[in-house]
Amino acid sequence: MNFSKTEYGNRLANIKRSMQEKGIDLLISQDTSNINYITGYDAWSFYYAQCALIHVDLDEPLLFVREQDAGGAFLQNVWSQENILVYNEKYIHTWPTHPYDRLIEIIKERGWDKLSIGLEMDSHYFTAYSYKKLVDGLPEATLKDAERCVNWVRYIKSDAEIDLMKAASLISVEAMNTAIETINPGIRQCDAVGEIQKAMFYGTSDFGGEYSSIATLLPTGKGTSASHLTATQERFVKGEATIIELAGVYKRYHAPIARTVLLGKAEQKKIDAMKATNEALNEGLDAIKPGNTANDVAQKFWSVLDKYEIKKESRTGYSIGIGYPPDWGEHTLNIYKGDMTELQPNVTFHMIAVMQFGSWGVEASHSVRVTDKGFEKFIDFPSDLFIKD
Amino acid sequence: MNFSKTEYGNRLANIKRSMQEKGIDLLISQDTSNINYITGYDAWSFYYAQCALIHVDLDEPLLFVREQDAGGAFLQNVWSQENILVYNEKYIHTWPTHPYDRLIEIIKERGWDKLSIGLEMDSHYFTAYSYKKLVDGLPEATLKDAERCVNWVRYIKSDAEIDLMKAASLISVEAMNTAIETINPGIRQCDAVGEIQKAMFYGTSDFGGEYSSIATLLPTGKGTSASHLTATQERFVKGEATIIELAGVYKRYHAPIARTVLLGKAEQKKIDAMKATNEALNEGLDAIKPGNTANDVAQKFWSVLDKYEIKKESRTGYSIGIGYPPDWGEHTLNIYKGDMTELQPNVTFHMIAVMQFGSWGVEASHSVRVTDKGFEKFIDFPSDLFIKD
Repeated sequence: MNFSKTEYGNRLANIKRSMQEKGIDLLISQDTSNINYITGYDAWSFYYAQCALIHVDLDEPLLFVREQDAGGAFLQNVWSQENILVYNEKYIHTWPTHPYDRLIEIIKERGWDKLSIGLEMDSHYFTAYSYKKLVDGLPEATLKDAERCVNWVRYIKSDAEIDLMKAASLISVEAMNTAIETINPGIRQCDAVGEIQKAMFYGTSDFGGEYSSIATLLPTGKGTSASHLTATQERFVKGEATIIELAGVYKRYHAPIARTVLLGKAEQKKIDAMKATNEALNEGLDAIKPGNTANDVAQKFWSVLDKYEIKKESRTGYSIGIGYPPDWGEHTLNIYKGDMTELQPNVTFHMIAVMQFGSWGVEASHSVRVTDKGFEKFIDFPSDLFIKD
Repeated sequence: MNFSKTEYGNRLANIKRSMQEKGIDLLISQDTSNINYITGYDAWSFYYAQCALIHVDLDEPLLFVREQDAGGAFLQNVWSQENILVYNEKYIHTWPTHPYDRLIEIIKERGWDKLSIGLEMDSHYFTAYSYKKLVDGLPEATLKDAERCVNWVRYIKSDAEIDLMKAASLISVEAMNTAIETINPGIRQCDAVGEIQKAMFYGTSDFGGEYSSIATLLPTGKGTSASHLTATQERFVKGEATIIELAGVYKRYHAPIARTVLLGKAEQKKIDAMKATNEALNEGLDAIKPGNTANDVAQKFWSVLDKYEIKKESRTGYSIGIGYPPDWGEHTLNIYKGDMTELQPNVTFHMIAVMQFGSWGVEASHSVRVTDKGFEKFIDFPSDLFIKD
């Protein structure tokens, strides 16, 4: 168990409070990170339907998993084993039969089919098919969007969670050092990722690493104009820039970091862009303190870009913590002009500047924690352009 | 471009034919693998809404992506650049605003809002929220499940695709050899995965590897009773078994393989279980030929298990090819009793036996191609229990 039973109890109590505020009696949580947060369950079984069920009047959540994955659930669920509900393999890959057919039966068996049921409507693995099953199968229930209520409970971290993120940060440093050392002209991109991945899993002697919820992003050359490209077997080219975005992971907690390496002599425009980017990031970071909002941070960040007449459309940060593919963002805090979400102590986020200039780009980022009076960086790592001439 | 323009044209023609059979005028394909198959686009941008649109009367598909990812789309889309439709960042993380709001506008602008529109209802990233946007935003359209029609076109591979899977297989061999060498008593699980990942990305001198759409699965000890557990920082223990499931990947094509290693003296029951498993796999494989069905293969496989009075609930195979997280299965062929899908030349699948016996388990698998008269294995690798005494 990664956390005390008390901590899991606190999480559940906070989620129930939010459910009550929203008028939700029963929550169906399909978000993989939420399931982990609620039950401790951690396995790559999220490619099939699974969920945690929270009823406001029950002392424990239920965990609904595929029969083949029951073994893992029994090993990891922090709650009573009788609250693991296993569905048979006959529901797998046999449309129109579907695991949610069994879920609907369970809901009916327990007399919950007339309740107000909260759904994670835009959660990655809560498919349209699952939703339609519920709409058709529970005609007397009131189905409503839970609006990421579990994610919002995750928004403020416990000190125990912060410790795991600090461990993840040590792994991020190992991986980024490896990346910067390894990326050289003539080296295949995939080979560099091989070294980076090795560093991410070896982690440190105290903290072994895990798979990241986003692959190592490694746009290079013209690809730096796009932020989500991954490595190919092409070789790094002298004179070109490469962006590295990765996250060390410890017990599913992520500490992302993005940096830019330039092989050979740097063009002045790239040096200038990187300098302006770091100035903007620092200006934004300085606005971090409890009571300030995402908008405050964004305004400061963009004020620097405006000064240099740099245009940037994309947002510049999001909350982080537990992550599973395809995303390490928590879908709560959004560092963007107009987002009035308030910062609070132990809010953690990835402040990232993806800067695109037509056919090229640069990036830098900081994973940070809001402290009582300001902020601290999880990772102490230079954010200048790494020029390898 | 990984394939000729002719091949992409053939794919599109086949998909349109299937759409017409199903009475679909416009297909919204959100499945990441399908998008890659249709357009060539390959980036880790699938954590936000994106899709390919195919209209039966248009010569080219449209690609709908986030503005931040437009650079990657312009580099990779094999069709005309004007058919890339970019949505603004204001739709990102600003519920109830949503990228599908823009998609609905586009559909209306083109006068497509009264058509019969096919949706990939149970595709991982086609969320309930996206679906509800379409239901509410296109009241005059007829929305229907496309029933994996693109996946079914992918079911039969071209020879060019088979070549990529053969390249992926060479990478699988490197990775599995590394796994079996590295897993030893006292070694941390995460460190073994570090070596495995390195091997997967280095691949061979001709074929550099890529990230796999499922993390290296590495259940060990009691964990072998569950099939989807990943590595921790705990150390391998003498006397315990470890299951390794991984896939070499080349240009997004996967060649999965599962094997079981036992450290120390093997208990006879595990040797016997592995032997029976391999006998069942071989019996199933021998039933592979064009005209036979998934059911034929499954019946043969289970007949051996029945002989040994071994019970197994879970299916024993699925089609493979392109993969993105969270899955490398194609969601078409299902090797399970009662699945009457017919095998045809160049159908490719992962025949896998996940064998669970209460507190322990073993696994083995073969990635295979259906040939004109039978089958061939992609990977030539012993499937016995690897006993390291």
